[in-house]
Amino acid sequence: MSREPVPHLVIIGGGFAGLWATRALARENIRITLLDRRNHHLFQPLLYQVATAGLSAPDIAAPLRHILGHQRNVEVRLGEVIAIDKAIRQVQLADGSSLGYDSLLLATGATHAYFGNDQWAADAPGLKTLDDAIALRRKLLLAFERAEAEPDPAKKAAWLSFAVVGGGPTGVELAGTLAEIARHTLRNEFRHIDPASAKVRLVEAGPRVLSSFPEVLSLKARRQLEKLGVEVLTGTPVSDIDSLGFKLGEQFVPARTVVWAAGVAASPLARTLDVPLDRAGRVQVQPDLTLPGHPELFVAGDLAAVNQANGKPVPGVAPAAKQMGKYVADVIRARLHGKPTPGPFKYADYGNLATIGRMAAIVHLGRLQLSGVLAWWFWLAAHVFFLIGFRNRVVVLLNWAVAYWSYQRSARIIFGDDQEDRRPR
Amino acid sequence: MSREPVPHLVIIGGGFAGLWATRALARENIRITLLDRRNHHLFQPLLYQVATAGLSAPDIAAPLRHILGHQRNVEVRLGEVIAIDKAIRQVQLADGSSLGYDSLLLATGATHAYFGNDQWAADAPGLKTLDDAIALRRKLLLAFERAEAEPDPAKKAAWLSFAVVGGGPTGVELAGTLAEIARHTLRNEFRHIDPASAKVRLVEAGPRVLSSFPEVLSLKARRQLEKLGVEVLTGTPVSDIDSLGFKLGEQFVPARTVVWAAGVAASPLARTLDVPLDRAGRVQVQPDLTLPGHPELFVAGDLAAVNQANGKPVPGVAPAAKQMGKYVADVIRARLHGKPTPGPFKYADYGNLATIGRMAAIVHLGRLQLSGVLAWWFWLAAHVFFLIGFRNRVVVLLNWAVAYWSYQRSARIIFGDDQEDRRPR
Repeated sequence: MSREPVPHLVIIGGGFAGLWATRALARENIRITLLDRRNHHLFQPLLYQVATAGLSAPDIAAPLRHILGHQRNVEVRLGEVIAIDKAIRQVQLADGSSLGYDSLLLATGATHAYFGNDQWAADAPGLKTLDDAIALRRKLLLAFERAEAEPDPAKKAAWLSFAVVGGGPTGVELAGTLAEIARHTLRNEFRHIDPASAKVRLVEAGPRVLSSFPEVLSLKARRQLEKLGVEVLTGTPVSDIDSLGFKLGEQFVPARTVVWAAGVAASPLARTLDVPLDRAGRVQVQPDLTLPGHPELFVAGDLAAVNQANGKPVPGVAPAAKQMGKYVADVIRARLHGKPTPGPFKYADYGNLATIGRMAAIVHLGRLQLSGVLAWWFWLAAHVFFLIGFRNRVVVLLNWAVAYWSYQRSARIIFGDDQEDRRPR
Repeated sequence: MSREPVPHLVIIGGGFAGLWATRALARENIRITLLDRRNHHLFQPLLYQVATAGLSAPDIAAPLRHILGHQRNVEVRLGEVIAIDKAIRQVQLADGSSLGYDSLLLATGATHAYFGNDQWAADAPGLKTLDDAIALRRKLLLAFERAEAEPDPAKKAAWLSFAVVGGGPTGVELAGTLAEIARHTLRNEFRHIDPASAKVRLVEAGPRVLSSFPEVLSLKARRQLEKLGVEVLTGTPVSDIDSLGFKLGEQFVPARTVVWAAGVAASPLARTLDVPLDRAGRVQVQPDLTLPGHPELFVAGDLAAVNQANGKPVPGVAPAAKQMGKYVADVIRARLHGKPTPGPFKYADYGNLATIGRMAAIVHLGRLQLSGVLAWWFWLAAHVFFLIGFRNRVVVLLNWAVAYWSYQRSARIIFGDDQEDRRPR
């Protein structure tokens, strides 16, 4: 009696899509290899809190091996995939090895993009990984140190001038939190500057911030930002960025710290698939999230371009990635059991939330629209609830509680042993 | 009516000595500048916990500006001192600026030293700063990843072979915690290795570990280490270290991960003072912690070589540094008020504690000698109590509670965006 070989599913990326697909297949007779460049799953919605020193890196990350340790049909492998050969069903790794598969789920997500202005990257870093967050934290905290040490008033002001480019959720969160740090957290701590005099600008090319929300909520978000001390500039695309500031049209605005929250592009691995990509580099998948002619090759999460029933694209948010991951698991499970596969992927939109800063947020759930303190509590509960792991939830809640009573941010620690950073220029 | 100018005290180093001196002078009519290369005070006794992923960096550090924000006679300055000119009472900073002083407290502590074998530094990193701890954490966690990916059994075993050089408190803590991680924390998480099969060796050149304790406690510490799974090698100096392992005499022992906890040397700034240093590079100060002929220049903490009344040197431990800092403040206060200065510095020895690992420690307090679980609880209470800042204490206790019930270590997150690190060799 010969046994059927156990099919091999390779999942690239341990983000929401990859991890949710893996867990949904826990009881199936399938061999799963989960490949990721990093050893941890990252709760990206709270990454801005690490960048702004409210949380420490381990608070919002959990080792993939630990999350999946007891799921015996999974092997977690730390490695970087550099190419996918869909004809021979093989992935190539950066260490020279390769891995064959029966099914593949590609879920490597998105990175930030400068739309043809890659030279801005050095002066306007983005925020997608823990390393980005730690680097941004250092940059933000050192700007105040440089301002304190600088005798020249104009140069001092430039160190106290911050700009966030991009009025989406990340840009709004960063700008709101930065204003809070300047106005409250650093109070009393400097002798030659008043941190509260720092300028925080949010620059958005489009007509309004948080444009995925109804117009009335966008407007409320803008008012809340302004109340926190952020200057909101809409309808003004940035035309240049360098180490001293940025340009709006022909007008130069001094700002030693510019953060990029404007552009998102799909992970470059998609290019090796040799299939049509959309303008943002995402893979145009079929309604069942597979590639045409390759029912064994799925793409999910931020890397997948797929439409909702109403013709609008599925947004690049965590709930959509989780739903796609579970959907892919459903299709694979149905095939394993020889049952009919489910119909096309349907995105269930449970609503949209965005936080703005201290006790400020907006919420849009069907006909329910909230803003202000109530929306903020709603946002907090939802985010802490969805954090993976008991320990993270408790520690994050505790940090938040202490932060909100004391205005303190416990992770205000500069590390990264860069000599250059310590010397005022 | 002319006002006396307020005297200027410069303190270099925000460790235990510098910070305790600063705080003790809070109510005096003196202008204090506290200079540090880093923006935070570090609770060094728990640094090994960051290296072994039990705590995150911000748990054991607090921003100096925050600690001292309300002490109006202090200015905190981020900067690196490169030389001291005691003739003209001036310190030189790396950014080219200089700073005059009326009194100076030099308290820059110690760094690790390889006793003429600096080529070992790359393969056997030490542990003195948060950056060291984050780098060591990455190295330890990646060793298990490399072992998992390595097909060759001998190479696999070398990745699972760990050595800690130096049987002092840091070496013992690191070896004990590493054994715990291998035997408990990583259980179930790998598919091609059994982490519990990892070899953890503690190599000490002298005849026993923790030699500052009575012999009977040293022996108990050794037994506790062995019970945790550590192989203790005493009387065996290391003769060479490279990336593949280390040598004991002529015998080569494969070990891809070697940690240096053997040598401590005073901070190199002392050399610019142009005064006699001891073999470890520490400044030989007078009984009042000043330099001969320079009553305005104090040295305190790990950088100061001074004897106790019994002729033994004052040990390089946190309580001694705090006591020296307070003593310097007492001398300066007496001078400010034109009162007689206190007699020579006297070290009050309140006892000696060392932790070994899970529920294992030794304690020596006068005639009281403890080991095992009771000693561990004693150690835990003392260390958490002395952690600066309410938030740190609560978070650290919470982390410990969760870690001890679950055997989990919450900070098992690899960051540091080194491409090299992600590729198994």
